[in-house]
Amino acid sequence: MMINNSITAKQAADMLCQADNILIICHKNPDGDTLGSAAGLMHALKKLGKTCAVLCNDEIAPKYDFMGIELFTKQFEPQFTVAVDVADTKLFGERTLPYSEVVDLCIDHHPSNSGYAKIVCCDDAMPATAQLMVSVVENMGVELDGTIADCLYTGIMTDTGCFKYSATSAQTHREAAKLMDAGAQHTMISTKFFMSRSRKTMELEKYALNTMEFLYDDRCAVIVLDDEILRQIGAQPGDIDGISAIPRSIEGVDIGITIRQIDEGKFKISVRTSENADACAIAQGLGGGGHVRAAGCEVIGSLDCAKKAILREVENALCL
Amino acid sequence: MMINNSITAKQAADMLCQADNILIICHKNPDGDTLGSAAGLMHALKKLGKTCAVLCNDEIAPKYDFMGIELFTKQFEPQFTVAVDVADTKLFGERTLPYSEVVDLCIDHHPSNSGYAKIVCCDDAMPATAQLMVSVVENMGVELDGTIADCLYTGIMTDTGCFKYSATSAQTHREAAKLMDAGAQHTMISTKFFMSRSRKTMELEKYALNTMEFLYDDRCAVIVLDDEILRQIGAQPGDIDGISAIPRSIEGVDIGITIRQIDEGKFKISVRTSENADACAIAQGLGGGGHVRAAGCEVIGSLDCAKKAILREVENALCL
Repeated sequence: MMINNSITAKQAADMLCQADNILIICHKNPDGDTLGSAAGLMHALKKLGKTCAVLCNDEIAPKYDFMGIELFTKQFEPQFTVAVDVADTKLFGERTLPYSEVVDLCIDHHPSNSGYAKIVCCDDAMPATAQLMVSVVENMGVELDGTIADCLYTGIMTDTGCFKYSATSAQTHREAAKLMDAGAQHTMISTKFFMSRSRKTMELEKYALNTMEFLYDDRCAVIVLDDEILRQIGAQPGDIDGISAIPRSIEGVDIGITIRQIDEGKFKISVRTSENADACAIAQGLGGGGHVRAAGCEVIGSLDCAKKAILREVENALCL
Repeated sequence: MMINNSITAKQAADMLCQADNILIICHKNPDGDTLGSAAGLMHALKKLGKTCAVLCNDEIAPKYDFMGIELFTKQFEPQFTVAVDVADTKLFGERTLPYSEVVDLCIDHHPSNSGYAKIVCCDDAMPATAQLMVSVVENMGVELDGTIADCLYTGIMTDTGCFKYSATSAQTHREAAKLMDAGAQHTMISTKFFMSRSRKTMELEKYALNTMEFLYDDRCAVIVLDDEILRQIGAQPGDIDGISAIPRSIEGVDIGITIRQIDEGKFKISVRTSENADACAIAQGLGGGGHVRAAGCEVIGSLDCAKKAILREVENALCL
């Protein structure tokens, strides 16, 4: 990442303290980290008496209701725009895209951050933007409370796969301890995000396991969820979140691919890799991005084309 | 738990410091917590120049090789016997049972600890015996090193379901941070225990999802793994570990039951519950024990009898 206009968490906090009428933008297909970071920042800014709200391109799943996110409905004229966990303008959606040109500050942890914002506070050593946001909030002089802690704990917990992924550090555990001391409801959050799956998720997992394809001496596993099966099961985006971790989780699999139809002739491809392959490089081959172990891209065309395209990238990565 | 002969971690450390020729005993069907706690203690005692070794009733799966456990082969005459994570004499196996009468100290975290040992150091607020063992080792005056940290981090990580379960506290995260600072190999451990499943585990999960039965208005889900399917898949105990978490993980399920044949006419039943039921009480109904959310028991008889017996306990628990 070569971003010249980058600042520290302390400097980001100072910028936010000087601003008001603040619009906070999440990435599309929002997850626990972008929402938790946005909500945590929103509550912190409100504690400082600021006017602020969150803009999200897509509908937010009910499981995030506890975050108490106040959505932006043009109730004020934004004077400062901050994007959280949004690495690239491609991650803006139809509704947020108009703001992509005027982002004053981006707070992020993706190594693939494109530097589209005027100022960037991006630390790619952090396993979650929410962990960076703990520093930002503290540097704003805001005391962590139960609500802020719930939001930031959710961000850390979800983006580290519940403290599983390799970017998890001793510092991650220390921040988690701090957030629990501040009142983060560990059990509520872990139950919601890690200990329960909907019947629809279960049906999807069953389908995934029953149909998973193993390729290249079992070094790659592929799941395909097309419109037909998604309709048949009645799956919502929230039901699908965990599926993309399945193929890579099988012993010996270096590259796990999940191809999910998101529209007529449009597919979202999730790439998960072991230490033997670079997920970000694979996704970037098709115009996507992300992290070294987890990345994604979108492909327009037929399912057959999408699959062939991603498998070409997989073959490159496996030097076949 | 009413145990009169109970002591603190500091007192347990003092006892261990005064002892030598120490036999460390694990519970049967050993898991990450009993093995990690035993191995961590073993390495700490060795740093103090003590003679010690670990006795485990069953073969230890290769995935625990990194712990460097030195097995007891009668290479010395035990003068002090410590059982770790062993709540009850029922958790001794054929090979360890002779020692169950002479356990000088039991270090444990199970609320169902039966107090069979001469002295008990049991803190049921701890999510893992390994978390308690961190205190014991520190109180022994042993500096944590990478090897000890690997063992204890594994115990904490596995018994908290990777920091998911409700007993996880801020202190758990602080101890985890401390162990990572001391050199615990987070990525190696999380990959081994939480990010990879064998093909056989995958086959078992597929079978479990395809055959899971939902009972009592879907408040109970049951998986049965009989000898035939275990043989057909060629599953080893290590492949089966995670399966028992599946039924309870389905939304709306309060009681998840996994019945696994362990011998001709002998079944191990795992019970997992939501906050709406007491797993330990259900397991105790059939002579077992454990924690409030995770417990187990063994039943002798036909599969049909075992299933009927446990479902009677489930009906009681659901007040049906």
